[in-house]
Amino acid sequence: MPASPFDSAIYARLFGDAEIAQLFSDSAEIRAMLLVEGALAEAQGAAGLIPAESAAAIARAAREVQIDPAELAEATGTNGVPVPALVAAFRRAMEAPEHAQYIHWGATSQDVMDSALMLRLRRVIELMDARLESLLQRLGALAARHADLPMIARSYGQAATPTSFGATLAAWGWPLLRHRERLAELRPRLLNVSLGGASGTLSVMGSKGSEVRAGLAAALDLGDPGGNWHTQRDGVAEFAGWLTALTASLGKAGEDLILLTQTGIEEVRLGGAGGSSTMPQKQNPVGPSVLVALARTSVALNGAMQGAALHRQARDGAAWFGEWLVLGQLCLASGRALSAAGEIAGTLEPRAERMAAPLEGDGLFHAEALTFALAQQMPRPDAQAAVRDLCAEVRETGKPLPVLAATRWPELDIAELLALDAQMGDAPQEARRFAYAAGAG
Amino acid sequence: MPASPFDSAIYARLFGDAEIAQLFSDSAEIRAMLLVEGALAEAQGAAGLIPAESAAAIARAAREVQIDPAELAEATGTNGVPVPALVAAFRRAMEAPEHAQYIHWGATSQDVMDSALMLRLRRVIELMDARLESLLQRLGALAARHADLPMIARSYGQAATPTSFGATLAAWGWPLLRHRERLAELRPRLLNVSLGGASGTLSVMGSKGSEVRAGLAAALDLGDPGGNWHTQRDGVAEFAGWLTALTASLGKAGEDLILLTQTGIEEVRLGGAGGSSTMPQKQNPVGPSVLVALARTSVALNGAMQGAALHRQARDGAAWFGEWLVLGQLCLASGRALSAAGEIAGTLEPRAERMAAPLEGDGLFHAEALTFALAQQMPRPDAQAAVRDLCAEVRETGKPLPVLAATRWPELDIAELLALDAQMGDAPQEARRFAYAAGAG
Amino acid sequence: MPASPFDSAIYARLFGDAEIAQLFSDSAEIRAMLLVEGALAEAQGAAGLIPAESAAAIARAAREVQIDPAELAEATGTNGVPVPALVAAFRRAMEAPEHAQYIHWGATSQDVMDSALMLRLRRVIELMDARLESLLQRLGALAARHADLPMIARSYGQAATPTSFGATLAAWGWPLLRHRERLAELRPRLLNVSLGGASGTLSVMGSKGSEVRAGLAAALDLGDPGGNWHTQRDGVAEFAGWLTALTASLGKAGEDLILLTQTGIEEVRLGGAGGSSTMPQKQNPVGPSVLVALARTSVALNGAMQGAALHRQARDGAAWFGEWLVLGQLCLASGRALSAAGEIAGTLEPRAERMAAPLEGDGLFHAEALTFALAQQMPRPDAQAAVRDLCAEVRETGKPLPVLAATRWPELDIAELLALDAQMGDAPQEARRFAYAAGAG
Amino acid sequence: MPASPFDSAIYARLFGDAEIAQLFSDSAEIRAMLLVEGALAEAQGAAGLIPAESAAAIARAAREVQIDPAELAEATGTNGVPVPALVAAFRRAMEAPEHAQYIHWGATSQDVMDSALMLRLRRVIELMDARLESLLQRLGALAARHADLPMIARSYGQAATPTSFGATLAAWGWPLLRHRERLAELRPRLLNVSLGGASGTLSVMGSKGSEVRAGLAAALDLGDPGGNWHTQRDGVAEFAGWLTALTASLGKAGEDLILLTQTGIEEVRLGGAGGSSTMPQKQNPVGPSVLVALARTSVALNGAMQGAALHRQARDGAAWFGEWLVLGQLCLASGRALSAAGEIAGTLEPRAERMAAPLEGDGLFHAEALTFALAQQMPRPDAQAAVRDLCAEVRETGKPLPVLAATRWPELDIAELLALDAQMGDAPQEARRFAYAAGAG
Repeated sequence: MPASPFDSAIYARLFGDAEIAQLFSDSAEIRAMLLVEGALAEAQGAAGLIPAESAAAIARAAREVQIDPAELAEATGTNGVPVPALVAAFRRAMEAPEHAQYIHWGATSQDVMDSALMLRLRRVIELMDARLESLLQRLGALAARHADLPMIARSYGQAATPTSFGATLAAWGWPLLRHRERLAELRPRLLNVSLGGASGTLSVMGSKGSEVRAGLAAALDLGDPGGNWHTQRDGVAEFAGWLTALTASLGKAGEDLILLTQTGIEEVRLGGAGGSSTMPQKQNPVGPSVLVALARTSVALNGAMQGAALHRQARDGAAWFGEWLVLGQLCLASGRALSAAGEIAGTLEPRAERMAAPLEGDGLFHAEALTFALAQQMPRPDAQAAVRDLCAEVRETGKPLPVLAATRWPELDIAELLALDAQMGDAPQEARRFAYAAGAG
Repeated sequence: MPASPFDSAIYARLFGDAEIAQLFSDSAEIRAMLLVEGALAEAQGAAGLIPAESAAAIARAAREVQIDPAELAEATGTNGVPVPALVAAFRRAMEAPEHAQYIHWGATSQDVMDSALMLRLRRVIELMDARLESLLQRLGALAARHADLPMIARSYGQAATPTSFGATLAAWGWPLLRHRERLAELRPRLLNVSLGGASGTLSVMGSKGSEVRAGLAAALDLGDPGGNWHTQRDGVAEFAGWLTALTASLGKAGEDLILLTQTGIEEVRLGGAGGSSTMPQKQNPVGPSVLVALARTSVALNGAMQGAALHRQARDGAAWFGEWLVLGQLCLASGRALSAAGEIAGTLEPRAERMAAPLEGDGLFHAEALTFALAQQMPRPDAQAAVRDLCAEVRETGKPLPVLAATRWPELDIAELLALDAQMGDAPQEARRFAYAAGAG
Repeated sequence: MPASPFDSAIYARLFGDAEIAQLFSDSAEIRAMLLVEGALAEAQGAAGLIPAESAAAIARAAREVQIDPAELAEATGTNGVPVPALVAAFRRAMEAPEHAQYIHWGATSQDVMDSALMLRLRRVIELMDARLESLLQRLGALAARHADLPMIARSYGQAATPTSFGATLAAWGWPLLRHRERLAELRPRLLNVSLGGASGTLSVMGSKGSEVRAGLAAALDLGDPGGNWHTQRDGVAEFAGWLTALTASLGKAGEDLILLTQTGIEEVRLGGAGGSSTMPQKQNPVGPSVLVALARTSVALNGAMQGAALHRQARDGAAWFGEWLVLGQLCLASGRALSAAGEIAGTLEPRAERMAAPLEGDGLFHAEALTFALAQQMPRPDAQAAVRDLCAEVRETGKPLPVLAATRWPELDIAELLALDAQMGDAPQEARRFAYAAGAG
Repeated sequence: MPASPFDSAIYARLFGDAEIAQLFSDSAEIRAMLLVEGALAEAQGAAGLIPAESAAAIARAAREVQIDPAELAEATGTNGVPVPALVAAFRRAMEAPEHAQYIHWGATSQDVMDSALMLRLRRVIELMDARLESLLQRLGALAARHADLPMIARSYGQAATPTSFGATLAAWGWPLLRHRERLAELRPRLLNVSLGGASGTLSVMGSKGSEVRAGLAAALDLGDPGGNWHTQRDGVAEFAGWLTALTASLGKAGEDLILLTQTGIEEVRLGGAGGSSTMPQKQNPVGPSVLVALARTSVALNGAMQGAALHRQARDGAAWFGEWLVLGQLCLASGRALSAAGEIAGTLEPRAERMAAPLEGDGLFHAEALTFALAQQMPRPDAQAAVRDLCAEVRETGKPLPVLAATRWPELDIAELLALDAQMGDAPQEARRFAYAAGAG
């Protein structure tokens, strides 16, 4: 158990997400902050706020200088933010003090850090959305393929009535489709530059503030929020909430798979089942367990992010630092959950013969269908009571419900009344609707 | 400390929200469930699934029967859900078994409970949205009125640079505007009927399932989700997240107000300050404290709601019961936070003379402006170093920064360079933009 | 779904806990606060701080006056705390101003409210501890009775190796025994009077402060903390953590029972299984689902309590109000979890014939035992590989592992090597150790 | 913002805790697991369960072999746990298959991982306890030194009545003393070896199970739990709760310091105040902000740990993986909070002249003392009303309360009645009691 299994070599294949992780590395953070400083200088040069020549020099240098993360540690420990040290290091590295003095002109640390964060969250969102799309296609294809494959639905762990495997997959998939919709909605609320200066008023930039902010946004390909959002953390909190909700939706699939792969149930086969250190027979649902663990962890982390929206006054170090401590983890957890779900969806196979088993046997799951069949000829409360009695008889005698029913009501065509197809109801269509919506129809 | 201060007579004016509370009372729940059963019968009558006469009788009775909540307790304790007992009581109360047998035809408890919940959440949303609109207008009007009123911005609790009181209000208000936007987006994802039958397949309704669901939706003026969402809890989880985010945004205002009303700061006057049992001088910021307490509580409750999205299989009693235990509380907390914020916004007054105080005195907050003024004539690092030295001198000598600066650089027009108006930068416009967006411009 | 199902008539038998609830009612809170005021006056009279006659009059009246909760609402809404209104109402009710003026002498609201809370938490603790003891005896008796009843242990939902039902019960019970131990440890840290006066210094009481606090503690049969703990919330936070941990431990039993009662597993029979509104055959594990729901809710509520320990300065309304909003709920959730667990333990029955089923069949669970048996005669890695191959053969052919093993190694006495008794290992003793420790041995 | 600022080079001095971090590195985990395997072999050799020569060879090799973390990644990704790969790598590395076959004899992955965790948590506890002791001595020395230094106590941010700086420090320190007490109590419940084998029954070890477990415990200098605790997570959950409570207590001090260092308050001077990237005058309370951020983060992480106690059946991958994802982070957060608090306590200085300021001025804080002084001569309600009127007059006229009081009641010796010493009440003694208890008296 390393400090964070997200960063561990041992657990790299279990919890690691290399693509997301590289966005949150020290060097990626420095790179992103330098990009912001460079784009800021360019925007300020264009606005005539700083000399054009200096702007160009800064922008060029921002793409070239190398700054060692460790070099920033001491001052970051004192200042709480790495930007003062970064700006100082950047200035030194430029070796052109006449230009370097214009670095970070009128900006504050939070402008740089939040804008740099948005550059990386944009990429996180692209990765997530692409993974979601791919996962949805796999799920959609599976749902289409198994739209008519009957299985028992279970409520409270009890056999309820028949559904189809495709419909089960659809229930995992619909929330994901909606999460893509939500992501498209929140994107423009989130991916904005931050530029407010010391207290959010851009006072140092005089009348040029709005122009510079617009220019910065254009240069970084982020939105222009039209104002200052230093203390308005609803955007990042919304994204944290989205990551959490996504991971929870994947966790639901994980929970179902843990239950479906149970010994004695085994209705689903996973590609990469885990072995035990001492039990040769074990085929543990490791991937689904990872989904659930990541979901529970995300729910917890999200609490810290939502609480950080109680950001005091014009800057609240305590609240802001709190975001740093969890947002990256949330991205990693969700990213890994998506990739793990993709791996699972890529190997998942229903076992039709195992799904058939609970649809045979005592046939108690026919109870509702039988009730409604009987209710065509007797008052429904009488039908319910009669079926309830019959269920008790099934439990005592071990004889299947359809058999007992046929004996009791020889005048009925029990086989037809209890035909599986009819009892699956809308399930096959549900599966196909999802497959279509997921682009896999 | 009663079980829930939301329900307490003692704390009714502190934490109570009578409008929201009545939506979650036992009788409101029974009423809503009966409405759903009535509308279901009507839709099934129209679809020819049950006799038209029975449908009409059920629909009529659903509006009229009185069912005592306590009558449902025993069976609810056994079944986990109140619907079996409710249906039985409804049937008995109708005293027309030939019609009553068609109550709850092919539906399951979750259909009725979730649809009934949506009827009440629709009203919660209307109330919340109206309160939000009203609060925004108050905040907008205040922001417009005080757009140019200077005050010090504080970061990490330290005097930073000047802003305006209007801009401070805008920072509270923008997230609320976005919360209205989010609410409009989530509404159609949330406010849908639930109708799936035992396992979500509507099997008992044969080919009429979709028609009945559409009819039920029309009758209840809710959306038709086009499928079953028993286990897809992303909608209710999203709403819980929204309630939490809203309450957190109000909590930020609460935190700021607690700080602004501190003895020695006192830049804001509240209408209803609280007295102490022993200290006659006390004027405690009770309302703002309530906002913060509700926000922290909501953040905690939200964790349970997000976790409940890990809903196992076709129905997960543990996860679903968990929603019941917290969603009502979340609505009450957010509702009360909105009403408390409205009360505060209705009496809140800035104290211009107190806001002026920190803008006089040692004048250290001019440091950034002075630096950039000097940077017109010397390299900025030199300017920063010079100002930092001067700040130290201010701390030693107690002489104001502008005075020391005028002595040190007699050639500069310090008064003009450090004029408050310029230092407020974009703050007045920020306030006016918000006022306009809030409909109070 | 009422505001709080803890208070609902409909859900009274599902989530209600009447014994705990009455401790948190409005009238119980008023009664407790009056008791504190009365005991304070007595202690102050004894110390000569207020006239003995007045002290006696106040103490007598404190037991007799009736104060209507609703009467306190208005002022509580303004002051945040009910004590100013309570003291005023108490004074009026005494109709003896010459004595009544000595009510609440030198105390502050928090003294009264926290001390009154402790009076009620003392009773909560007594109830909880008694319920725990009773639950442990039931579990212990069950564990003793079924110490040797074989069942399969499941890890990751997969059949692992045999254990006994008694050992399974012991795994539920040991943490409860430790929770009683923890409760005994935390009790003296928690159940103390609070008496600090306005800012915790007891300044108004001059040199008599310590004496009065000791006297108050003695009168109320609470501990004397020896100082002021207004802002030191570690005691209440510890208790909240304890309630949460207790409920989580019961939730683990709930999870296991949900899994053990699954259709197709059915190794346990519950007394009060829940029926469906549409499926006559259902026997839902309602009680276990309640345990899990209460556990997840408690975990969430606990977050708010732990965060409230960040209590700012000498009194932090936001943090303190936050405690009020959740501590009662936590007590109710834990109390109900304990009573529900008691109900379950009182009716729970293992089904030996169902437990036997997975110990027959394909016999894959013998794989570890077979490996170690073989490892007596061949290197263990070879044994593991051989058994793993055999497991694959079991899966292909459907022939039981012991049969295949007997064929492959005819020289071995497979039946003896794979005897169930040996494979249960320490499980029976584990069950008996627990039974003994639980006082049921 | 790296994935985890705990691991970042940039943030190493802000959030890093090198001593704790090295306990949770990949190599430390491997080392600890090898130690467990080695000690297990020794214990099994001593019990005659495996050949003594093999036991000795394994134990020796366990101290010597080098296993590359990356080598375990692939199999860990499949199996969920690193132990199968670790055992295989260890066997290969020994190059003595005749001995190596006895590695991990009858143990399961969880035995090794949980025991290895305990080895590291023991060291975490030692570090924490030593840091706590050192912090308490610093706080105690400060409290003793400043026991009589008057300052205003603030409740709801409002000036209340006088206290002393020493008493303020004592309020931070007492919970820490109790946390040491709690740590001593939980230690024996936590620091135990885990040895249960596949399903916790130690079946493979036959009658030698208890002996081996006791031997393992002795060899590792951990406790012998006397049974299996695979699924009983109350011990690790309790420790997580303790870490959280500790960090929250430190967070309270952080909150107070943020408030005490505010511009305009400035009653405390911190050693390492943080600079801004644009405001030369800033002295941000970075350390206190870190304390609060770590506390809020810990509260969130703790939720995941408490929830993980709902560990299903004999092993629950989802719940157990969840612990891995957060327990290390919690240790790091608490460890860093303690070291940050130590740094703060080492440089913290009160500013007596600033503390004096609010004790002069309008003197409204005298209101309670004046009330009780007057109550010696008039009924207390009259005294309260009179003082309340006078407070209003203070606010209108700006004249200090003592001045107005002296005018109004010329017969009283206002100066003596309102002497600061008396109003500090028990505060100096409180400070000294704490200093003594903290070993610094």
